[in-house]
Amino acid sequence: MPGAVVCFGELLIRLSGPGHERLLQSPRLDVAIGGAEANVAVGLSRFGHKASMASVVADNELGRGAIAALRAQGVDTSLVRLAPGRMGLYFLSQGAVSRPSSVLYDRADTAFARLAKSLTDPAEVLSGARWLHVSGVTPAVGPHAAQAAVDLAKAAKAQGVHVSFDGNYRAQLWASWDGNGPDILREILSCATLAFINERDIALILGEGFASRHAAFARTFEVFPSLTWIAATTRNLSSVNHQVLSAELVSRTERFVSRAHELAGVVDRIGAGDAFAAGLLHGFLSGQGPQASLEFAVASAVIKHSIPGDFNLTYVEEVEDILADGGLDVRR
Amino acid sequence: MPGAVVCFGELLIRLSGPGHERLLQSPRLDVAIGGAEANVAVGLSRFGHKASMASVVADNELGRGAIAALRAQGVDTSLVRLAPGRMGLYFLSQGAVSRPSSVLYDRADTAFARLAKSLTDPAEVLSGARWLHVSGVTPAVGPHAAQAAVDLAKAAKAQGVHVSFDGNYRAQLWASWDGNGPDILREILSCATLAFINERDIALILGEGFASRHAAFARTFEVFPSLTWIAATTRNLSSVNHQVLSAELVSRTERFVSRAHELAGVVDRIGAGDAFAAGLLHGFLSGQGPQASLEFAVASAVIKHSIPGDFNLTYVEEVEDILADGGLDVRR
Amino acid sequence: MPGAVVCFGELLIRLSGPGHERLLQSPRLDVAIGGAEANVAVGLSRFGHKASMASVVADNELGRGAIAALRAQGVDTSLVRLAPGRMGLYFLSQGAVSRPSSVLYDRADTAFARLAKSLTDPAEVLSGARWLHVSGVTPAVGPHAAQAAVDLAKAAKAQGVHVSFDGNYRAQLWASWDGNGPDILREILSCATLAFINERDIALILGEGFASRHAAFARTFEVFPSLTWIAATTRNLSSVNHQVLSAELVSRTERFVSRAHELAGVVDRIGAGDAFAAGLLHGFLSGQGPQASLEFAVASAVIKHSIPGDFNLTYVEEVEDILADGGLDVRR
Amino acid sequence: MPGAVVCFGELLIRLSGPGHERLLQSPRLDVAIGGAEANVAVGLSRFGHKASMASVVADNELGRGAIAALRAQGVDTSLVRLAPGRMGLYFLSQGAVSRPSSVLYDRADTAFARLAKSLTDPAEVLSGARWLHVSGVTPAVGPHAAQAAVDLAKAAKAQGVHVSFDGNYRAQLWASWDGNGPDILREILSCATLAFINERDIALILGEGFASRHAAFARTFEVFPSLTWIAATTRNLSSVNHQVLSAELVSRTERFVSRAHELAGVVDRIGAGDAFAAGLLHGFLSGQGPQASLEFAVASAVIKHSIPGDFNLTYVEEVEDILADGGLDVRR
Amino acid sequence: MPGAVVCFGELLIRLSGPGHERLLQSPRLDVAIGGAEANVAVGLSRFGHKASMASVVADNELGRGAIAALRAQGVDTSLVRLAPGRMGLYFLSQGAVSRPSSVLYDRADTAFARLAKSLTDPAEVLSGARWLHVSGVTPAVGPHAAQAAVDLAKAAKAQGVHVSFDGNYRAQLWASWDGNGPDILREILSCATLAFINERDIALILGEGFASRHAAFARTFEVFPSLTWIAATTRNLSSVNHQVLSAELVSRTERFVSRAHELAGVVDRIGAGDAFAAGLLHGFLSGQGPQASLEFAVASAVIKHSIPGDFNLTYVEEVEDILADGGLDVRR
Amino acid sequence: MPGAVVCFGELLIRLSGPGHERLLQSPRLDVAIGGAEANVAVGLSRFGHKASMASVVADNELGRGAIAALRAQGVDTSLVRLAPGRMGLYFLSQGAVSRPSSVLYDRADTAFARLAKSLTDPAEVLSGARWLHVSGVTPAVGPHAAQAAVDLAKAAKAQGVHVSFDGNYRAQLWASWDGNGPDILREILSCATLAFINERDIALILGEGFASRHAAFARTFEVFPSLTWIAATTRNLSSVNHQVLSAELVSRTERFVSRAHELAGVVDRIGAGDAFAAGLLHGFLSGQGPQASLEFAVASAVIKHSIPGDFNLTYVEEVEDILADGGLDVRR
Repeated sequence: MPGAVVCFGELLIRLSGPGHERLLQSPRLDVAIGGAEANVAVGLSRFGHKASMASVVADNELGRGAIAALRAQGVDTSLVRLAPGRMGLYFLSQGAVSRPSSVLYDRADTAFARLAKSLTDPAEVLSGARWLHVSGVTPAVGPHAAQAAVDLAKAAKAQGVHVSFDGNYRAQLWASWDGNGPDILREILSCATLAFINERDIALILGEGFASRHAAFARTFEVFPSLTWIAATTRNLSSVNHQVLSAELVSRTERFVSRAHELAGVVDRIGAGDAFAAGLLHGFLSGQGPQASLEFAVASAVIKHSIPGDFNLTYVEEVEDILADGGLDVRR
Repeated sequence: MPGAVVCFGELLIRLSGPGHERLLQSPRLDVAIGGAEANVAVGLSRFGHKASMASVVADNELGRGAIAALRAQGVDTSLVRLAPGRMGLYFLSQGAVSRPSSVLYDRADTAFARLAKSLTDPAEVLSGARWLHVSGVTPAVGPHAAQAAVDLAKAAKAQGVHVSFDGNYRAQLWASWDGNGPDILREILSCATLAFINERDIALILGEGFASRHAAFARTFEVFPSLTWIAATTRNLSSVNHQVLSAELVSRTERFVSRAHELAGVVDRIGAGDAFAAGLLHGFLSGQGPQASLEFAVASAVIKHSIPGDFNLTYVEEVEDILADGGLDVRR
Repeated sequence: MPGAVVCFGELLIRLSGPGHERLLQSPRLDVAIGGAEANVAVGLSRFGHKASMASVVADNELGRGAIAALRAQGVDTSLVRLAPGRMGLYFLSQGAVSRPSSVLYDRADTAFARLAKSLTDPAEVLSGARWLHVSGVTPAVGPHAAQAAVDLAKAAKAQGVHVSFDGNYRAQLWASWDGNGPDILREILSCATLAFINERDIALILGEGFASRHAAFARTFEVFPSLTWIAATTRNLSSVNHQVLSAELVSRTERFVSRAHELAGVVDRIGAGDAFAAGLLHGFLSGQGPQASLEFAVASAVIKHSIPGDFNLTYVEEVEDILADGGLDVRR
Repeated sequence: MPGAVVCFGELLIRLSGPGHERLLQSPRLDVAIGGAEANVAVGLSRFGHKASMASVVADNELGRGAIAALRAQGVDTSLVRLAPGRMGLYFLSQGAVSRPSSVLYDRADTAFARLAKSLTDPAEVLSGARWLHVSGVTPAVGPHAAQAAVDLAKAAKAQGVHVSFDGNYRAQLWASWDGNGPDILREILSCATLAFINERDIALILGEGFASRHAAFARTFEVFPSLTWIAATTRNLSSVNHQVLSAELVSRTERFVSRAHELAGVVDRIGAGDAFAAGLLHGFLSGQGPQASLEFAVASAVIKHSIPGDFNLTYVEEVEDILADGGLDVRR
Repeated sequence: MPGAVVCFGELLIRLSGPGHERLLQSPRLDVAIGGAEANVAVGLSRFGHKASMASVVADNELGRGAIAALRAQGVDTSLVRLAPGRMGLYFLSQGAVSRPSSVLYDRADTAFARLAKSLTDPAEVLSGARWLHVSGVTPAVGPHAAQAAVDLAKAAKAQGVHVSFDGNYRAQLWASWDGNGPDILREILSCATLAFINERDIALILGEGFASRHAAFARTFEVFPSLTWIAATTRNLSSVNHQVLSAELVSRTERFVSRAHELAGVVDRIGAGDAFAAGLLHGFLSGQGPQASLEFAVASAVIKHSIPGDFNLTYVEEVEDILADGGLDVRR
Repeated sequence: MPGAVVCFGELLIRLSGPGHERLLQSPRLDVAIGGAEANVAVGLSRFGHKASMASVVADNELGRGAIAALRAQGVDTSLVRLAPGRMGLYFLSQGAVSRPSSVLYDRADTAFARLAKSLTDPAEVLSGARWLHVSGVTPAVGPHAAQAAVDLAKAAKAQGVHVSFDGNYRAQLWASWDGNGPDILREILSCATLAFINERDIALILGEGFASRHAAFARTFEVFPSLTWIAATTRNLSSVNHQVLSAELVSRTERFVSRAHELAGVVDRIGAGDAFAAGLLHGFLSGQGPQASLEFAVASAVIKHSIPGDFNLTYVEEVEDILADGGLDVRR
């Protein structure tokens, strides 16, 4: 039986050069499985929640490998369909010093993009769920994925399943077909209880500029009456591998601000936003208050920066240890 | 200036698990650059000939990496165009014992498939060429590639450039679009001087069955009056890594048969056919007779089985050493 | 809910030098998860059956990693308990030419050895099962494991769950404590429907010698009235990496003999016996007759020799392809 | 003949994931040989001293590999006995950013733990020695090791061999058996000339708290009349890989403080304490004064942070270069 | 046809331990191709210029591999001769924290050192060139190389080809034969339009000390009337992997100073000076003014610190992105 | 104190591409330490004898690494001198199928070649020795090495130390200087008790041809009256990785012939001759008769083919297991 949180989105195979090498500098690529929603599912599973992935993967060794990676992390994959087609890939060049990491997508015309709609049955997906998590990446993949995401969000709202939406506006993907990104995202947002979204996302979705993050959030609450919470991180980079991370969680009446974490010697920043989302959902699901949930979420994201790959391979104890200032020296 | 032999086809990025692992068994893939015609270009370049590649690659780090791999081997790449789109990939699981190697193509809708026709100018490609080499894989990629291949072959024939055609009928690729494979391949074959083709290819192309390889070749010479030579290998496998390889070269009046080579402990069989083609063209280009050219071609293919990757990273001296029975113990 | 086949035994972490290196020749060890019964569970899962593992693992990153490896292969791990203690390890030196592979066990006093009995509830383990699979390795681990195995086998027999027993007599393990191996194994065998066992195992278990395999099997059927089938492989090695494998399946009235497979260029022989067991159980579970089940089982074992690690990472289609003589050249 | 410094303790095999990966994230472990006293022996040998290791290792490829690693570094291993049993292992997860490194011990019931006492003859071990070095880890391993350590320390004191004791109180190990840690450590300390301990160690050993490091040291000198020197490092971590390190060396009448070193981009912190101990002993053995010895010791520890593995693979010249501010740019 | 910039110097094979390991710590070495002038040629080629390498390499797999590496980067190698002899090697230990990287040269008596003069024909090398780039490393290799460098510089000056000279005074190399370094370098400098030198190089070349960089530059302009530009970087290291880099470009009348870049988490500092030189030549060749050229040059050097190996595997767009403060977060 | 057998010769660093790759196909080289005489010393040490190496290595990290590798194997290195200069290197391309392995030497002008004579004191080297082992490779290195080898052999003979000489005539090395190989080798052979030579070596050394191996041996015994034993292997290769190996041991009156071993799936053939020599010396040193010594020697060589690197990392037990036909299946 699917878990309390269902994540809907595409599974991706990530390919990156070893260490800080450029792509093809050595004839070898390191592989990781990822995808914005899959990363959240893995995070939640590792935090002790029953998380399900709903998706479509290619019916070949790559698709089955992606499923295996999720299952290894305890994610329920009974809602992942195998279908003809190709897997979405992305190639990552890990940056360093002043050269930012860069992502090269190769995810056009995938099994997910083609069949996300026809192979996803909202009733089945949402049966037993308390939360549906979906990100702005999913509808950006193409018309079928967009329709599936919208339908799922609406069905969730209709039957009282909370919708968690992570905004990530990916211009590169929206540019690959003729979908109206803002319209579609507004449809999903109108079903959401919780949005991970910042002033830049909001400006794109609402088609208007804002003087401040505060103003953007205020307008978002106005436009989307179902929305209860907005969460957003703030990231300051003095170098690719040295950053400061904090976050805030805002409701219509309150604003919670996390402590700021200095991140020195960042190993892998990919998936940190998803680790933040998984952390916040963990806080909510386990009945912690907003401030505690937010702190847990940021500390979860902090840890992700120390772990290679897309998945946040951590434990509740490790996150809490950071919050308790448990010390940075070797544990033995 | 492009070289004496121009090879036209798609450049592929090959991704395989380390050693004999299944795909994604370890989170790592080994990378090689390949493609039927590119392999021939590399072979010819290493045998001392000026070889050019004509192709279209994605204008990204992967496409540029593919070009770099050809340039490293001395192949002229001035006819390789960079264009928007994706690169063709293929995933290889190296077999062993009784489990055959298997290839998973991910080459739909590539920059080459989309733009092979529009970015290929026959006059420019053939200027200065003595031979054009193209394989049956290229037209199978899609309508644009097929048209480009046919146009090039016709232009070559018209201006006295010899056409070398390697039949490889790939049902998997032809099934991916509605092209009439036999028709298209017949058009190319009707321009060819030299064909690497066996009775199975011929049956598919001519749409008729044959009692013997002999009969198939005889019929082929009838149907294609411009054809001077047919070359074909014979491969017997007692195990995935233990094989016997020989070949024959047939004209309208003569038949040359090579010695048979026992291949024990095969390292990588991919590209052996292309190594055979490059070897035969080397023999022809360097003025050797048919028997000597054929023996060189088979020995070139033999060596390929000892080298990882698609390219036949050998030297004329090594091939000749095998023909001279130079000994198998360490050289020092 | 646990699957139709429950496998009970210890999960092991295998550590081996890269390629054919001796242990610690390079400062690196390759890791695989294994264990006789776990290998069978993985094999069955990959052949499409619902297989469960019942075990105890260390409550640390190693134990959780072992669970993850089973889950990745689709094995149900709801019956695997986390407990304080250490994981069983084994160090493998891959042999070659005339140097046999060798195993160095480091599995004394593991969480499984200590707690296999107290954390295993027969009623829970067998609920819903059609088969229980256990090997002679499990009771050899120590008194708690031996008791747990005997109790499970008896409970299975009592409630009509078939017991599949794989003999593997491991003198090294029995020597590490004062258990009476033959007595214990006889208790388990007396519950078994199917035994994977040869004349050498039988001699050790029954404490008597036999003139032939035939005589040993006949006596075994006499001593164990519940036993329906005995299966045994025959392996001839002309070199560490070149072998011939066949098998037979015998009932009280019939004898089925498989074709013999020549294995050239063996990659990894570990787990081949478990692949054979999984293959035979697959045949039985899917309603194939004895000859077909046996041929499937041997072909399953054949494929294992081509795959690194303990798990037989194959598919039904690949096994059937060998049985159909589908050819050994590259599939593309 | 054994060397001037004899180090007594357990040899360990360290297994860690590649880079910053979690254990088993990839199916590969990097191997290093270590152990608190072995690290000191290696450090001294590389600084030009004749150092001997006294220990017991498993009589298998792992134990012999551990001996080989010490011999490679020039350490005399004639006092290392091979005996039945298992090797001590430890699994290391390298931390990063705010996730501390963590050690998972798997060293229960090793050949050393079982046989350290019976296979160690104080007369033989100390013959020719000027210093005996032992750490608090050794007695924590178990009763036999504790007894052996105490006996050796007493014998050393009796025959005028200086005892160097490194406190490292490992609660995890002491918890694994019913030894009275403080009592045992006091016995050893009462024989020591030189102690590497800090106020935390002292509080645990003496069973009383202190207002300051100064007070703790003062009390230690009171309790242990043979003690001449106490050395202690101070480590401040702003991030797992960014630290500041300094140290002090205190006698009954004097206190020497080293310069503080900023450690940015720490590669491997394990073994730094042992590198400090080896550096101080080097200073003493080579007749340098306390301040110079202390500065050398800290610089030795500083270098260890740049070198993967437990051993401080450096040279006297490199340490002195740091003390001379020889510059940080490439040397060529 | 050779390109607009000809670089003359030795090709080297660099061998370094994995990660931060000492040489031979693991039985593996990572390989890169380099050489001061080759690095400049690669940089220019990647910035879109036609760059040629003039050199002599060993006529074996190593020499041909070095040529392949340059060709892969688009550098014209028609002026690289194959000759009997050995390749120059250098072994690199990557430093960290406070341990500087160190280079062990093994480049005595190479094919280049023996034959640089006899196989280099100035007329052929300079035909079609606008710039000749040579560094102080080349004449330091030995008498033949020195003569070849001087002859080329003189011929260039004579026929109006600009000479770019990078000073790098390598005492280690000059000490290996009895050449008069200052005399030889003065001969080359007297032909140069552009010199990459600092006050330390100048003091060695002119044999006099200077109170300031300013004074040294002033004197250099006096001594070498043909010289138009002097460029020099300033590097401050707070740790091996944390540095600050800036540069200045000075003419007889003007002085341009770049912005300073903080380099945190340096990956590989080797080749940064060559990346600076290539960047400045790019600015000059593409008609940018001095300030813009200087800023581009420094940003080019900055990026080199993020890329493993000797070559600056970047693009014009990446360099410009740094100058435009394009942001440090992942690009996707 | 040096051991009973002293081996005199050069230590080499071997660099080879991973697996069966060509040199520089991937940017990585695997490293092993070797050298004909060092391999014998390691073999003897692993067979339980006290073996010493006498040599000269470069006083840098490479030379020290070579010493460490010998020490790790228990070889006494007190007679290995550190001196200025370079290390001998050799690059190995592992062959496969019909492509033989090939060695590229880079060992001109090494520290050993320059200083072998001046840093080798026969009295010191031979003190305590029962056997001196030297191969024909050593004098081929150059005049100083040749003189040192001759002087040592003469001194050994003079003081009753047995000389074991392994012929290996390396034309490539003799061609690199003007030494008279045959003359020098005759001088050494005239001191030898035991010679590992075949008819090809003898023909070169004596300057005459022979109708048979028998005739060559007879003539050798005539010319060298001190010679007691000649040993020679016979190797038949049906493929690079499939061979048959046997050997004979001949005295003036007797001839012993070993059994022939089939070697399938050869991993690394380098060092097999040295493994044979070490095995025979082991037999002699441990008082076995000629037939037993010969069989041990061949089995030792057989095992070498299964182990990567130059050293025969085996044990007496493993060799004896082969002689006892202990079986080829996994040991556990």
